[in-house]
This record gives sequence, structure tokens and C-alpha cells, in this order.
Amino acid sequence: MVDGIGLHRVLEPAGVLPQAAWRLDADPAIAPDEVRVAVERLNLDAASFRQLADKHGGDGDAVRAEVLGIIETRGKMHNPVTGSGGMLIGTVEEVGPRSTLGLRVGDRVATLVSLTLTPLRITDGLARWDGRGEQVPAHGHAILHGRSIAARLPDDLAPELALAVFDVCGAPALTDRVVRAAATRPSFASGVTVAVLGGAGKSGSLALVAARRVGARTVGIVRDEEEAARLREAGIADAVAVADARDAVTVASAVSAALGQPASVTVVCVDVPGCEHGAILATAPGGTVVFFSMATSFAAAALGAEGLAADVTMLIGNGYAPGHAGLALALVREEPGVRALFTQRIEGRIGP
Amino acid sequence: MVDGIGLHRVLEPAGVLPQAAWRLDADPAIAPDEVRVAVERLNLDAASFRQLADKHGGDGDAVRAEVLGIIETRGKMHNPVTGSGGMLIGTVEEVGPRSTLGLRVGDRVATLVSLTLTPLRITDGLARWDGRGEQVPAHGHAILHGRSIAARLPDDLAPELALAVFDVCGAPALTDRVVRAAATRPSFASGVTVAVLGGAGKSGSLALVAARRVGARTVGIVRDEEEAARLREAGIADAVAVADARDAVTVASAVSAALGQPASVTVVCVDVPGCEHGAILATAPGGTVVFFSMATSFAAAALGAEGLAADVTMLIGNGYAPGHAGLALALVREEPGVRALFTQRIEGRIGP
Repeated sequence: MVDGIGLHRVLEPAGVLPQAAWRLDADPAIAPDEVRVAVERLNLDAASFRQLADKHGGDGDAVRAEVLGIIETRGKMHNPVTGSGGMLIGTVEEVGPRSTLGLRVGDRVATLVSLTLTPLRITDGLARWDGRGEQVPAHGHAILHGRSIAARLPDDLAPELALAVFDVCGAPALTDRVVRAAATRPSFASGVTVAVLGGAGKSGSLALVAARRVGARTVGIVRDEEEAARLREAGIADAVAVADARDAVTVASAVSAALGQPASVTVVCVDVPGCEHGAILATAPGGTVVFFSMATSFAAAALGAEGLAADVTMLIGNGYAPGHAGLALALVREEPGVRALFTQRIEGRIGP
Repeated sequence: MVDGIGLHRVLEPAGVLPQAAWRLDADPAIAPDEVRVAVERLNLDAASFRQLADKHGGDGDAVRAEVLGIIETRGKMHNPVTGSGGMLIGTVEEVGPRSTLGLRVGDRVATLVSLTLTPLRITDGLARWDGRGEQVPAHGHAILHGRSIAARLPDDLAPELALAVFDVCGAPALTDRVVRAAATRPSFASGVTVAVLGGAGKSGSLALVAARRVGARTVGIVRDEEEAARLREAGIADAVAVADARDAVTVASAVSAALGQPASVTVVCVDVPGCEHGAILATAPGGTVVFFSMATSFAAAALGAEGLAADVTMLIGNGYAPGHAGLALALVREEPGVRALFTQRIEGRIGP
């Protein structure tokens, strides 16, 4: 039952899973169930890129050097501070005879598992990247293990757009599931309400449309008026409000004012630390908080709910759910407002 | 809606909730909705005590000095490394005219909210504590805010026992809820199976009996043969197996061997880092992992599930649920095996 998860690629410490490993073996020679991908582009996790950019005060050369150093040292792009990675795009170069991923040589694919467990080697020194954005043009190779998840890039969407969508495709899938479950509870029989902290971002905008599509009334909480204007223009939330997600009291008040009540479901998509308490305080008794931000503190959430005597269910956002990539692509194809937000972000018209 | 959570006790940084604060004001003068308690005993969180004991190599004097230092610096017992606290026992000294907690002067109570958000001052230098156990005799005072939760100590149980039970009473309450929900899912129609990592501990043993009482078949995973013998003797699990909870592959194999299948629900009660992947790998598709250990890493759980393509729901163990204290006390009264494990632990016959 534990085959195909890349255990033989773990160099240290011995015996742990690849994601927990300090260092992986990125040898290009593949095992019978593996696939080697020629890398074309990395998409760094937002929390990871933000940490690196903040650390180096926006100095792109220093950010690039540190990313290269991490990959060379660890055999994977696994930011040791944030614990997060990202994903990549590339072309299948070799498929082991026992691989069950259904890929063929020449397929253009995106990996849907984190870079934190994907053996990776870079060969071009990331020379084409200025260190100033999450999307990193790169040459090199990556290894997919037997149980990896990789999606062929769709023909009708730009690869950068598909990659950005895949990166956060767990968020709409889990939001869909949680809102459907909330709707079955007697206390929410009059209608499910959903608050998304960081509603103008990638995972946030997808969570908003996923929730609305299954009948929820939604509010997107954003950090400033500029984001609010963008989210209103996108037309994907029933209400939009401005609040600092780290200011618990303000967040809770803003959500209640916009929805006329606390949220049945609160989805946290803000990649800064300290948003746990606001999310908990904004959520109705018997409701659910879904934490998608990798900046979430387990202890702050657990103790926060206890300290507020809050009867809420708190979920760790799982990046995987069956069918997640397909659902997210469908939302981007069918919701022009979401597509516009993604496109603006990719084209660099708005920050990460 | 955000009254009564102690905001006026926050000294720095301004505007955050008490749990997120670096420093609280432990002034004994109470606000109209507050209650002051004369402290009799602290019960340190297991992860916090373990970190302090490990750091000082078991030097009790050094542990005591550090605990005193934390309380003096922060105005609360909030371990800055683990982010966790514990709870306390004491006697109500003064009740504000607008308090809604239902307490009277002279009531002997235990706090059910974390020490990480409870203003606390120690006046005896912890002179009666040897620094070698989680239970800390102490003199001083603590402040309960308007929405705190405090339970009167029951007459039929020793205070140390009641305190130890209250400390982990969220675990059986949430386990009960999650197992009931799992039983409604078609994929578990043939019966819910539950694995508890750390099944011989306080939260673990309560989770085991809570699960069995609502019909689940259970396995307790423990770290060594000594714990296994103790758990078998207690007779509270259908099966007992030994595995290092940090060794993901071994944990998953042990659970499947004991239950004949992966667990529908896995409950993590092991207070050491690195147990996330084993719990995920041990859980059936569509199942649930409940993380009660304060040593849980949010990122390791989120990325681990994604990297293993594991369709599991992951819950952050909320220390609060309505009726949690009453359920836990009932389990200890009615399950002699659980009571024996708690008593052994309190009497120091087994380590923390």
C-alpha cells in the first residue's frame, strides 16, 4: 500500500517520506514506475515567494540565488522557512515501463503535487528569471513518482494560466464539498453563507465562485480599496468588504455586516500569518473554517478556537481531491470574472 | 459580538486577541464581566512541558526558572517555542457584577480555556514544584474573561484527575462527532474503523473509548511494548500495535494489519513533531484525520496529503465543543481502563 511514493529518492533523513526529507536524490535515471519531465517553468508557492522577496527587500538577484541554492542543497524546491514549494510545467521526457500515470513522451504536463516532494535539478542557473515573480522560467528535469498527479495542459488555455489554476485547484474542490455539507445542516437550512478572506487572489476567487455555484451567498474580504474595486469588477462575490485579515475583530465585524450574520463557512486564502482568529470569530456556531493559506499556524487555530469557546470545525486545506483540476479549469472557462483576475495576475498587472 | 474576549488585557501588540498577544496585563483588579481566581495548580500542556524538559536535560530547577520567566514576561503561561500552554485549577476569589460564567466566590474550578490566553501572575516563585512534572503547585491569581469556560470540580473525582481530564476533553468530544459523521458515509457502511496514534496517553485513551462507544472498531498505536502492555491491560482498544508514529510507512502498515484495512478515522494524539504523514497514509480514501497534537505542522499535513494524493479530510483538533467536559468526565467515571491510565499518569508511575 505504500509503493509508488518515492521512498527510494529520500537521501536524508532515511526512512521519511519525500516531503519530510531534508534532501532528495534528483538523479535523472528513472525507476520503472517513474516519469522524467523536462522542466520549462516553476510556479513558486505564494507564501514561499513572499518570504524570499521580503527577506531580500525585493532584490531579484538575491532571490534567484537563494532559490538556486535551495534546489541544489535539497534536490527539490522546498523553502525551509515556509515549508512550502509550488509546482512546475514541462514536457514528458521518459516514462518508466511500470508507470501508471497515463503519460506519454512529448506530453506537456503540469505537476499537481508540491515541489516540496518532487526531485528537481536546474541546469540553466535560472538565467531567464529576474527573481521578481512567482513564475520562474527554468531548464532542468523533475521526477514524478508512481502516485504523483500530473495533468496534461489543456489546448484552450495559455499554459501560464493553466499552471496558476492547477496550483490552487484544491481550494474550489474543498470549498464545493464543505458548502454542500453545510447545506445539509439544520442550522443553515435558511441558506449557507460563505466568507473568503483574500477573495481577490487565485485560490480565493476560485473558492468564491465554487461556493456561489452551489448556492451560497458570499462575501470576499480584501485588504484594500484597490483589491475591492478589482473584485467588484470581477462580479464573482455577492458582497465585497475591506479588512486587514490579521485584525480579528475588524474581520468578524466586516463579515457580519456584509452577510447580516456570521459565515456558515469561512475560507482563508490570505498568505500572511495571523489570520486564524479573525476567521474563527467570523464563523457561526456549528460552522466550518477552511484554512488554505500555508501561513496558517496549527497552534494558533487550535488554541484560538478553544479560547473563543468557538464551536467551529477547522479544516486543513488538502491540495488534493478527486477531480480537482477539472473543476478548477471549468470554473475559469465559465466565469469570466475569475479568468480576468487570473490573467491580470499572470500579466503582472497586480502583485503576487 | 466580540465582547468578553479580554481585548482590554492585551498590552502588546495592540489590537490582537489575547492568545495572539505577546504580553497580557495580569492586573488583579477585574472588569465588570471578569472573574479572578486564586491559583492552586497549573497543568502544563504536554508538548510544552516536554520541550522545556528536553531543553534543560531534565534539570527541574532550570525548567522552573524558565516557566517563571515566561509568566513574568508574558503575563501568561504561553511557551513561545511550542505556542502552547495548559490550564489551571483554583478558587473563585471575586466575580464581576456582569459576569455570565455562573461562578460564585469560593467555587473550586478548573479553566477549560488555554493558559496561552489567561492573564496569570505567580506569587510564590513556584517553590513547591520540582520542575519534573506537568502538574505545578502554585500560588497567584488568574483572570477569566467574559466568554471563558470554567468548570466546577466534581465532588466524586480527585481534583488532579478532573484537571487532567478537562485538559484533553476536546479530544473525545470531537472523536465522537467525527465517528458519528463517518458512519453516515456509504463507503464506511460496513463499519467505521478508528486508529489512535498515542492511544495510551490522556487524549488518546479518551478518544479510543469515545470511538468505541459509538460503534467503531479501534486500534491504539503506541511507541513501545511497555505502553502496549498498559493499553492492553486497560482493555479500551480492540487492538494494540507498536510503531514509531513518525515512521509513516510503519504506522500505515501497523494500522492496516490490525484493522484489516486502513482506518476510516485516524486520531493523532502523539505530542512529537512529524506524525502527519503516517496518519494520512494510515487513513482510507474518504476518511478523516483529526490532529490533536499541538506538535502538528500545518504545512506538513497540507502538503503531505497532496503529495500522497490522499483524499482525506484533515481536522485541526478544536479544544472546545459544547458539552465536552461532561462527556469526558462520564467516560472516566464509566470506563475503569481509562481511569486507571489517568491515575497511573497522575501518580507519576508513568512519564508524561
